[in-house]
Amino acid sequence: MPPAPTNGPGSDDRIINETDLIQTYLTPLTRGDAGTFGLRDDAALISPEPGRDLVFTSDPIIAGVHFFPTDSPADIAWKALAVNASDLAAKGARPFAYMLNLALHEAPRREWMAAFTAGLKFAQESFGCHLIGGDTDLTPGPLSIGVTIIGSLPSGGFVRRQGASKGDHVFVTGTVGDAALGLKVHSDPASFAELNAEQRAYLAGRYLRPVPRLALGDTLRAHASAALDVSDGLLKDLARLAGPLGLSLDFGRVPLSEAVTLALSKDASVAKLVLAGGDDYELLVAVPPGSIPAFLQGAAAAGIAVSDLGALEENIPLCVVRSDGTQIELHQFGYDHFSR
Amino acid sequence: MPPAPTNGPGSDDRIINETDLIQTYLTPLTRGDAGTFGLRDDAALISPEPGRDLVFTSDPIIAGVHFFPTDSPADIAWKALAVNASDLAAKGARPFAYMLNLALHEAPRREWMAAFTAGLKFAQESFGCHLIGGDTDLTPGPLSIGVTIIGSLPSGGFVRRQGASKGDHVFVTGTVGDAALGLKVHSDPASFAELNAEQRAYLAGRYLRPVPRLALGDTLRAHASAALDVSDGLLKDLARLAGPLGLSLDFGRVPLSEAVTLALSKDASVAKLVLAGGDDYELLVAVPPGSIPAFLQGAAAAGIAVSDLGALEENIPLCVVRSDGTQIELHQFGYDHFSR
Repeated sequence: MPPAPTNGPGSDDRIINETDLIQTYLTPLTRGDAGTFGLRDDAALISPEPGRDLVFTSDPIIAGVHFFPTDSPADIAWKALAVNASDLAAKGARPFAYMLNLALHEAPRREWMAAFTAGLKFAQESFGCHLIGGDTDLTPGPLSIGVTIIGSLPSGGFVRRQGASKGDHVFVTGTVGDAALGLKVHSDPASFAELNAEQRAYLAGRYLRPVPRLALGDTLRAHASAALDVSDGLLKDLARLAGPLGLSLDFGRVPLSEAVTLALSKDASVAKLVLAGGDDYELLVAVPPGSIPAFLQGAAAAGIAVSDLGALEENIPLCVVRSDGTQIELHQFGYDHFSR
Repeated sequence: MPPAPTNGPGSDDRIINETDLIQTYLTPLTRGDAGTFGLRDDAALISPEPGRDLVFTSDPIIAGVHFFPTDSPADIAWKALAVNASDLAAKGARPFAYMLNLALHEAPRREWMAAFTAGLKFAQESFGCHLIGGDTDLTPGPLSIGVTIIGSLPSGGFVRRQGASKGDHVFVTGTVGDAALGLKVHSDPASFAELNAEQRAYLAGRYLRPVPRLALGDTLRAHASAALDVSDGLLKDLARLAGPLGLSLDFGRVPLSEAVTLALSKDASVAKLVLAGGDDYELLVAVPPGSIPAFLQGAAAAGIAVSDLGALEENIPLCVVRSDGTQIELHQFGYDHFSR
């Protein structure tokens, strides 16, 4: 049965039929992949390419926890896919497929669903993947969007989180702290009054539309000893990368955008947002000294700025040092889902 | 840092640290698979076996929607994995790995988490798979357990939902309606007073602990033209299997347990539960006439009872006929998540 036409203004335009929801809004996202059976089967089929490994990661986003219920559907869709693609980026993998588990608080309006799936279409085209399956449910809880993303890479190319050695330099892509300030700007328009409209839009955009650093994949596989993405805060993720090693981080080496630099000049406590705020989805990459020139060349060729945060050392803790040589206290930095 | 020891009685034994939760309770479920990196990385790695395809399916279960919040943690764990393994069973695939997305309403008690993961361990060993990754989150909504399961089968062996032809006979495994009555018995101890304790326990068990028909995999791939599992009700799933074809179902052919037969003898409306109730997770299988003897032999060798529901025909609707020849009305049978 073909889906009912969109109702006119004033009438209730909620999608009350699950088959309608799937076939009208989700099936087009499969891009005709025969292994998805038009989302009319109970499972999806993949025939793996010889010589390539598969990489899996899954990070749901929940309204009120990871995004605001009032965020635009297209922004929500972007974030749902981007945070997962970012994990693949850190492993040197290329996304190619994803499963979508949509838990809706109520039957969705056609307008919302159309905007949400248009956002997914834009995101999946940006990241090079498509929908292969999943599930839709009504939930008494808040809107939750669960993505399990599947990537691939040449066999043996997986870049681990825990592979760094003493002497490896740690690089970070892009700039740090934008998303943490962006979250504040997005949720409280009165914050950071010193920033102009363009700077505020830039920061909010960094929070709402993180860009997975997928272009760095080949370079990571070739030259990185370890990598992960900065999702829980620079210091917390730096500690994960360092493992048993330590690093004395000169705060002056942390790459900051113009907007964050300005905010920091007005309020020194912005440093804490830079070090502990999450959601930047930049990559932290450990590179052995001998591979640094090739790594820098690869990053430049990929068009991705990288900054050297210093070398991993034995028998020192992770610490942060100001330009005047004094140390910044590290207790209670970072973010744990269970102890907030 | 090693996890804190279990607290003594009287103290608060909630797990407030996500790393503790993962390393203490979830990492053992990976069974040492090197591609899971002890759940200390952001992604899992699979090196696909040559000559085999991969099959993906994902069905979350939500407290208050798919199970009762008061159900035992081990029952919840079983169901979360079983409903997903059942979809693989219908495709002729063998589960080997799964991702787990746990959205908890509050930091869980150690006792609950230990029972839940013991239940997962039992279920994954029963189904032949292990945990490879996922995510834990706190949610303002109800407990939600999202499983994305990954199975494999010989290349080209995928059994589709829509592959049945005119003349194919439709078989169903086991008995139908048990879970629908089991849900009533489980939620209302006063229901079906005519059933004894053993019969009631049997029905509740069929609702709480559905058994995916994985043992039928080889036989399905060899002889089935189409298959799916009965999760949304016999008639609704039969209609899905039949597609444009129809079937005149003699109600006397529907295989019933002793308990359902007894309940039906006291109350004719139980027939509606049998035809429209979901959650049995039996398989509906279409088999071409020439393959029926081999299919029956394969099912017997696998120890799975199958019943012939009749042949698919052109130009007739799906209908149900009583032993006296009168037709049972079909309107409003089945279940749609969005129109309930």
